[in-house]
Amino acid sequence: MAVGQARFPDMPVIDGLRLGTAMAGIKKAQRSDLVVIEAAPEARVVGAFTRNAFCAAPVVVAREHLAASTARGAAARYLVINTGNANAGTGAPGLRDARLTCAEVARLTGVDERAVLPFSTGVIGEALPMDRLLAGFPDALASLDDTSEAWHRAAEGILTTDTRAKGASVTLSLGEASVSINGISKGSGMIRPDMATMLAFVATDAAIEPSLLDGLLHETLEHSFNCITVDGDTSTNDACMLIATGRGARVVGEDQIERFRNGLQRVMIELAQAIIRDGEGATKFVTLHVSSAASRREGLDVAFTVAHSPLVKTALYASDANWGRILAAVGRAPVSDFDVSRVSIDLGEVRLVEAGGRALTYTEEAGSAVMAREEISIHIDLGRGEEAATVWTSDLSHDYVSINADYRS
Amino acid sequence: MAVGQARFPDMPVIDGLRLGTAMAGIKKAQRSDLVVIEAAPEARVVGAFTRNAFCAAPVVVAREHLAASTARGAAARYLVINTGNANAGTGAPGLRDARLTCAEVARLTGVDERAVLPFSTGVIGEALPMDRLLAGFPDALASLDDTSEAWHRAAEGILTTDTRAKGASVTLSLGEASVSINGISKGSGMIRPDMATMLAFVATDAAIEPSLLDGLLHETLEHSFNCITVDGDTSTNDACMLIATGRGARVVGEDQIERFRNGLQRVMIELAQAIIRDGEGATKFVTLHVSSAASRREGLDVAFTVAHSPLVKTALYASDANWGRILAAVGRAPVSDFDVSRVSIDLGEVRLVEAGGRALTYTEEAGSAVMAREEISIHIDLGRGEEAATVWTSDLSHDYVSINADYRS
Repeated sequence: MAVGQARFPDMPVIDGLRLGTAMAGIKKAQRSDLVVIEAAPEARVVGAFTRNAFCAAPVVVAREHLAASTARGAAARYLVINTGNANAGTGAPGLRDARLTCAEVARLTGVDERAVLPFSTGVIGEALPMDRLLAGFPDALASLDDTSEAWHRAAEGILTTDTRAKGASVTLSLGEASVSINGISKGSGMIRPDMATMLAFVATDAAIEPSLLDGLLHETLEHSFNCITVDGDTSTNDACMLIATGRGARVVGEDQIERFRNGLQRVMIELAQAIIRDGEGATKFVTLHVSSAASRREGLDVAFTVAHSPLVKTALYASDANWGRILAAVGRAPVSDFDVSRVSIDLGEVRLVEAGGRALTYTEEAGSAVMAREEISIHIDLGRGEEAATVWTSDLSHDYVSINADYRS
Repeated sequence: MAVGQARFPDMPVIDGLRLGTAMAGIKKAQRSDLVVIEAAPEARVVGAFTRNAFCAAPVVVAREHLAASTARGAAARYLVINTGNANAGTGAPGLRDARLTCAEVARLTGVDERAVLPFSTGVIGEALPMDRLLAGFPDALASLDDTSEAWHRAAEGILTTDTRAKGASVTLSLGEASVSINGISKGSGMIRPDMATMLAFVATDAAIEPSLLDGLLHETLEHSFNCITVDGDTSTNDACMLIATGRGARVVGEDQIERFRNGLQRVMIELAQAIIRDGEGATKFVTLHVSSAASRREGLDVAFTVAHSPLVKTALYASDANWGRILAAVGRAPVSDFDVSRVSIDLGEVRLVEAGGRALTYTEEAGSAVMAREEISIHIDLGRGEEAATVWTSDLSHDYVSINADYRS
């Protein structure tokens, strides 16, 4: 299942960036499961990683190599991603395998092994099939290309339970020049914020200061990938990487930075929403908007409490305007001195709750009409302050249970 | 679905306590949906209520009447419970209906209306059918009785989506005399701690100081109803009431208090576990034990993070020894400075995880053999301190989705 149609966008060339794929047979035969992203030597790479304490071996090594590259002023040159096996919960042998992977790519390409960042996604707790994985690299490197097709193939090569490739792109004019931002993401279950909750690779040809680039990544992450949830589970392997090759226009001055930030934010939100639209078993795409919160944290707490409620999620699945469940979920959110008589809740354009109870104007017909839609927005006004937060989520369907009762992830 | 068999226990007479039921036709015809519990004038009644900010009208009124009774040194005399309609999210009219209910019972029995405590469970957001409800009281009062059958009928009369009546009883000898503690509970979905997460009514003939009784209720609650979760949703109507009629032996001295506390704890745990065994769609009864935590709060946080993980719950449903999901859930628990290399995880008697990864001794066969059972225990040792916590939960099945996508709760 997935919500709506999705067409993989045309991706412009990002000068200084190429992508290659191969079929290494890591878990299944005859499918793309190995991706290499090559960045030009002058590129800047920044990243954000899962906060799961049991983070996977590739996350440990990627963090380490990224820090080492930054420390010596050298760029990370190759990002290598395999699907089918997460190399998580694999202890010391897993770390050795992640390092071996980097060493092999370094040997084949003549770069320092610390210039290679590994990423894995798939089954937790099984050893990487190193022979097959390493044997795949020559093909992946041979296919390196900067075309839209190369982006599409890479987007397909990182999928697990996803049903479709996810991509987004914007092109911005900066002064007389223009820069592009392309991104791909994967993720379908085990999706939750704090932090990255999936894999995403975003690249731009813009030339931009590394510290500014890093700041923009974390800032836009906070309003995109950190605002989505399918099932509240944070994966062990999540990462979001942003590469600026520097071959294009320079981003300078407040105005240009602001435009770049907005463009990046658009790409990040589109990629994040694509994950929810393709959430495991998803039949609905739900926007939870909380306004008049005392703080953004409070707004997020209320939104996530509703988004994680199995009762709300099953009601959404059933297209049942069961506003009582939304009210009950809001009521148990971690908000201190919560005066519910100031809360109003709207389902789409229909007022559900006000003054502590069902709105007098509410009718079952009006509520049901909204719930029947594939895209639903729920607006919760807390009447406490000036802050707001938006979270995107999916419903809880029979297919979610089937997918997760059958698939060994 | 429900886990295992359950026989409603024989309940001894609690001197000074009677229960009556009636069919008021609140939601369905021809089923018991109205229960009255009558306590002797000298009884002491203490209670704990939901912390949901959108708490239901009867919760507001029951709290108010209980405080008023305590303030004037008078007992609450009648607890009236209806199922089929929660009188929650009903605003001012809902409060009026809850007060009218008390007034009518007060009129029929000749007590002060503040001696009547109302409880409701069922659909949120619909007005109580007051005519039918009030018309049911004469029958309920006429059937007041202290027999085991009266307890059983009352346990049936408070059910909603539950598939079976839940009761527990212990008899303790205190010096030369003995006292009994009987309890009934209901709850199946929207079950989560902080606080009562259901309705439970426990009564004893023991004579015991009100402040001590109140302390014992909250203490035993902390290790019973506050340690269960089906779906993480806290209801708007939860309450747990404890009545001591004082007609039996006096509980005095540390030794007797300790014995009474242990007996009460047993009844409370049995009633709480009965809710999980009868959890919506439950096919597994799961005990999560966290040891070597830095604090009990930390232990509870880890246990509830695992208990609420849809991925762990669907793996339990599938009898799939997917230990990677347990590891990932533990890793995302809110624990600061979490050194996962000190964590060990056991599934029943099988070691799953140690030293940050899969245990060397682990085999899929051994894990699957444990997962195939109907009752499963998961033991997580954090290697951080001396505290421990135990939480009970159920799995996430197709039936859970069906029940909640179909039932308007």
